[in-house]
Amino acid sequence: MTDKTSGGSHPEKCASLGEFGRIREFLAPLTLGHPDSLNLRDDAALLTVPEGDDLVVTTDTIVRHVHFLAKDGPGDIASKLMRVNLSDLAAKGAAPLGYSLSLALPVSVDDGWVRAFAERLAEEQATFGIRLIGGDSVRTEGPEVLTINAYGLIPKGQMMRRDGAKAGDLVYVTGTIGDGALGLMAARGDFIGLPGAAELVRRYQIPEPRLALGEGVRGLVNGAMDVSDGLVGDLAAMAGTSGLGAVLHSHLIPLSDPASELLAGDPDLMISVLTGGDDYELLLTVAAENKAAFERKAEATGIPVTAIGEITAAYTSGMVAVLDADGNRVNLDNLKYTHI
Amino acid sequence: MTDKTSGGSHPEKCASLGEFGRIREFLAPLTLGHPDSLNLRDDAALLTVPEGDDLVVTTDTIVRHVHFLAKDGPGDIASKLMRVNLSDLAAKGAAPLGYSLSLALPVSVDDGWVRAFAERLAEEQATFGIRLIGGDSVRTEGPEVLTINAYGLIPKGQMMRRDGAKAGDLVYVTGTIGDGALGLMAARGDFIGLPGAAELVRRYQIPEPRLALGEGVRGLVNGAMDVSDGLVGDLAAMAGTSGLGAVLHSHLIPLSDPASELLAGDPDLMISVLTGGDDYELLLTVAAENKAAFERKAEATGIPVTAIGEITAAYTSGMVAVLDADGNRVNLDNLKYTHI
Repeated sequence: MTDKTSGGSHPEKCASLGEFGRIREFLAPLTLGHPDSLNLRDDAALLTVPEGDDLVVTTDTIVRHVHFLAKDGPGDIASKLMRVNLSDLAAKGAAPLGYSLSLALPVSVDDGWVRAFAERLAEEQATFGIRLIGGDSVRTEGPEVLTINAYGLIPKGQMMRRDGAKAGDLVYVTGTIGDGALGLMAARGDFIGLPGAAELVRRYQIPEPRLALGEGVRGLVNGAMDVSDGLVGDLAAMAGTSGLGAVLHSHLIPLSDPASELLAGDPDLMISVLTGGDDYELLLTVAAENKAAFERKAEATGIPVTAIGEITAAYTSGMVAVLDADGNRVNLDNLKYTHI
Repeated sequence: MTDKTSGGSHPEKCASLGEFGRIREFLAPLTLGHPDSLNLRDDAALLTVPEGDDLVVTTDTIVRHVHFLAKDGPGDIASKLMRVNLSDLAAKGAAPLGYSLSLALPVSVDDGWVRAFAERLAEEQATFGIRLIGGDSVRTEGPEVLTINAYGLIPKGQMMRRDGAKAGDLVYVTGTIGDGALGLMAARGDFIGLPGAAELVRRYQIPEPRLALGEGVRGLVNGAMDVSDGLVGDLAAMAGTSGLGAVLHSHLIPLSDPASELLAGDPDLMISVLTGGDDYELLLTVAAENKAAFERKAEATGIPVTAIGEITAAYTSGMVAVLDADGNRVNLDNLKYTHI
């Protein structure tokens, strides 16, 4: 781990621990003493990939005001940063191995912030079985920009891919959809008085990476990605990378209780369910002949999966037709959309 | 490669290509069509590590106003970002394999900037034999924050380490020292009229990663790192991680012609040579019995190396005594230091 708080300057002399001190005090313990991380005192770390495995690499950057709220604290920011990266590993069917961390922090961020950030990372590491291997810590004059590169292991040739969908595949999602977008709206002051509003906000702030499911159904899945930019757009992207389209049945989309209650009162909120982001559920396509085996494997992980559509060669590449319970096309343009 | 320009929004509709368009047009070609990168259309990439090798991972982040100048153009910024990371691989003795790229860009950055940035990355890739494997592209309200995670291959057990220095080792540097710090001063308006000023500025802007040397001397080196934060501080850090100190002979430090000319006129500039950063030369410690073999191997790479000191157990851990040609201690506090 390196410290370049300023080009060619001496270490800063101030009441703060400074970047080196923060790395030593707060971040070095996150390596869990693994020798390959060299206690964050080197310019690089070492990763050993077992014979028979490949390494899956994913990168996600989050920025204050863009990917998290100005009022979010260091713990929740750490959780989100970690979990959005783990969600990408889950979508590949990979097992978490380690991660590199890059922190670009304004000078207004104090040692206490970094301590709380690191403490939450330690908790998340224990939850998901991953450890810090290295990174960088720098100063910026702008808002926090935080990057994790996450590394996972996958048996050679078994990585699930976004471009694996085939015509006739069933389209599944894990968990419930729409809570991320509705949670962001709730965090910004909508849905005052709704009993489940706090639950929605937590879903936006703390996504649940579906690692057990990704690993569990590996080999039974054709196409896979996580739903981070909105269900319809992500399904269009996945089908499109295979030159295919998709049918999506809106009445089959699994909803949480608070989301169901909200939609009962304002059906136009379906637009947020369909196109909002930040769900971090898995979107998976499964050949019809693997349906039973897939559902059995999924059930064993305890993570619910729901079939919501089909991949089809009937449409132009990347087109998604959203149909309601009567089979009528849902025109997304007719739904009132509140840009968030 | 993922695109999260805003939490849960539709793709932006504007004259710009947008993030997806920029990734497709400018960044996807940087994968050189390698299938493991999935054309940047997946959430992750795959890295295959040959049997017998380990993977070296290094992370460097650079920020406008901190690590490069406000007036620097996209090409030179791309070169610096790439080269500071490759310098870390060089210091490990690793061979470049691939890199992940995270771009946090303000909305004021237009498509032309990204095109020029990517074009320079393509040139650097060809020079150094590395390819893009994945990354992320996000929006920020602050200055550009650019991160590369670089991956290199190393035969198992052969990675050079910062903490390998042993008492009695000779201390070597590659190339010339001080040009980075003097170049930053020149870029900020010092040394007007000096014929070599432009050369110094280029040295600050475009460091030269010493990959051939790192690979060439692997096995003959005990401790290794790159000189990025200043020669004395970096040598102190290297010796200190082994619980040792060092002697540094200031008159042996290799200087470029313009640096020599500047120091002849103002000897106090030696402080910038000793403590300035951004040289990105390698700092290597070599056992006395390997001196001849090391110098022979180094010569074969065409990259000059100079012995400038010794590692010693005589001092407290991390102490560096800087001695002049007469053997007198140079008191760094007595030198006029201009904070940069």
